[in-house]
Amino acid sequence: MRFAVTYHVRCDAADVEARAQGIAIEQSVEMPLAGIADPAVLADIVGQVAAITDLRNGTFAIRIMLATATVGSDAGQFLNMLFGNTSLHEDVTLHDVDIPEALQTTFGGPRFGIQALRQRLGVPHRAFTGSALKPQGLSPDRLGLLAEQFARGGLDFVKDDHGLADQAYSPFADRIRACAAGIARGVRTSGHPTRYIPSLTGNLDQLRVQARLAREEGLDCVMVAPMVAGFSAVQALVADFPDMAFFAHPSLGGLRVSPDLLIGKLFRLIGCDAVVFPNHGGRFGYSTAMCRSLAANARDPSAGRPALPVPAGGMTIDRTAEILDFYGPDTMLLIGGNLLLARERIAEEAAAFARAVADHAFI
Amino acid sequence: MRFAVTYHVRCDAADVEARAQGIAIEQSVEMPLAGIADPAVLADIVGQVAAITDLRNGTFAIRIMLATATVGSDAGQFLNMLFGNTSLHEDVTLHDVDIPEALQTTFGGPRFGIQALRQRLGVPHRAFTGSALKPQGLSPDRLGLLAEQFARGGLDFVKDDHGLADQAYSPFADRIRACAAGIARGVRTSGHPTRYIPSLTGNLDQLRVQARLAREEGLDCVMVAPMVAGFSAVQALVADFPDMAFFAHPSLGGLRVSPDLLIGKLFRLIGCDAVVFPNHGGRFGYSTAMCRSLAANARDPSAGRPALPVPAGGMTIDRTAEILDFYGPDTMLLIGGNLLLARERIAEEAAAFARAVADHAFI
Repeated sequence: MRFAVTYHVRCDAADVEARAQGIAIEQSVEMPLAGIADPAVLADIVGQVAAITDLRNGTFAIRIMLATATVGSDAGQFLNMLFGNTSLHEDVTLHDVDIPEALQTTFGGPRFGIQALRQRLGVPHRAFTGSALKPQGLSPDRLGLLAEQFARGGLDFVKDDHGLADQAYSPFADRIRACAAGIARGVRTSGHPTRYIPSLTGNLDQLRVQARLAREEGLDCVMVAPMVAGFSAVQALVADFPDMAFFAHPSLGGLRVSPDLLIGKLFRLIGCDAVVFPNHGGRFGYSTAMCRSLAANARDPSAGRPALPVPAGGMTIDRTAEILDFYGPDTMLLIGGNLLLARERIAEEAAAFARAVADHAFI
Repeated sequence: MRFAVTYHVRCDAADVEARAQGIAIEQSVEMPLAGIADPAVLADIVGQVAAITDLRNGTFAIRIMLATATVGSDAGQFLNMLFGNTSLHEDVTLHDVDIPEALQTTFGGPRFGIQALRQRLGVPHRAFTGSALKPQGLSPDRLGLLAEQFARGGLDFVKDDHGLADQAYSPFADRIRACAAGIARGVRTSGHPTRYIPSLTGNLDQLRVQARLAREEGLDCVMVAPMVAGFSAVQALVADFPDMAFFAHPSLGGLRVSPDLLIGKLFRLIGCDAVVFPNHGGRFGYSTAMCRSLAANARDPSAGRPALPVPAGGMTIDRTAEILDFYGPDTMLLIGGNLLLARERIAEEAAAFARAVADHAFI
């Protein structure tokens, strides 16, 4: 059984067949074929070049068929077989993977996905709203007060900044208690069931301790950065905490894996219910086409439960209508730093944001 | 307390000051400074631009001072603060980090390093030799027979191919037993204490189970791929297995982090005793200058115990003299696939390789 992986390679036309064959070998047996005595390995394990397409911009799309048997059931090994050594070639980008049924079943994808998040929040149709707790350097109490403001404004989700970890000025356990309490106070004012999403960091032991603390605080959402924590750790965490919805942060995502694949398909595949990514026109250089493709991958109905696209990265309230028209309502709008500019008027600004999303008339 | 991080940014001269300020904020507070009310955060946490140097090739070196307090004690969080969101900018490379004493102490670096490996192998002066077990798809028994050949040839180290994981055709427990037994048979023939280095994969639980199996087989070396397993997992594993020397595999290292930094400094910092990397002139495009800098970082005497550089990736025996003259004797030569071309003469070819290294006269 094989599955198709597409790489984009910047090279001369004269070299492309050798490059394609090189990738097929590198991502499978990683040795000269002349040294392989076993016919079954040659037939069933060595990668096969299925197609080479000239993209007419100095780049070729190379489609390789890899053996599913080399992956096993570990998500880290999946990434290893997709791009491990080939990532060391500067002129190659991992462009796409046709995830086969067997691996879809092995890894499982989101446990909740978009519909279950809608039910939890009591938001059947409109897009979701979110903001982020920052800057780091604040004490847990200060972050808790900030969380309260966002919740009073009626936002759906308030996440930790991904830089908040387990620092001396704001230890994880103190922070999560203070922020959960702040959200609870805000919810009592607003009546809206705002969810707090703590960012989990560290090794698998530490991630589990933090997820258990989240559970003890009555939370049902957490955030992880799969490229920092490791795909295998996220896979284990998703299995261990069936009550938690997982939000994926793209930190360290600048591996030369096409973002619509890494964030839209692969983060979803290993069980993330919602995927944060840099929206076009913000602080990062993703194109509108890339963002459209990423969101389409996250919600592709043919790949099991859909994950929630969360465009972010320097967003502002005045872009609400444009973002909603671009992504549609199965989306969470995440505005972080720009809400914080309101300083003592944060709850009001959050409320204005919540209202803009609720009142939006799709064109 | 702050430490210096250098990024290379491809941009116009007119934009570089704004880009530098943007990175300083992105890798610290990640929000508009106008939204920060706390003077201590502004003074102690926000990143500071220390220098901008025009490298005269369309690229600028930007030196940012980050606050050590934001790192805490988790190696994953260290990478997150170095390059988390900035990795999402295609025109930025993480070029270098001046690792401060505090973080050197926190993370610890190699427990063994070069000298202890020399003692274990009884190799006081010459360079080390190594090869790799492949192709994947072979049964444990077949891999064990191959391991025996390499050991009979008198190599110092025989590592798993990094693609060998826990696959149905070669489950980890069966493979490690077969290969350890094969090595032991070869050692009885050769009299040389060849070490087998199994590749550990999976999440932290699985990594620990595999490391314990390695210990039960009497092994004292293991390999991990820090970019696949996650920095935090490697950090935990190094702490948990004080008897094991850790070899780092560069798989997924094609994050746009300068390889001399990622592999030479950072893999070493989190405790790897030996670091495998693609040698110049092999299958990968690393330059001689990059390889020299990577090896220098791995052995830099000012950064604690040195790690062993392991140049690899398409090496051949006839390059032995050149590689040894380039790297010197505190090096392990790793020849994988090209030894396997000898097929039924693998032990003899391994012996020729071992002899070439032992007999080399440095110029």
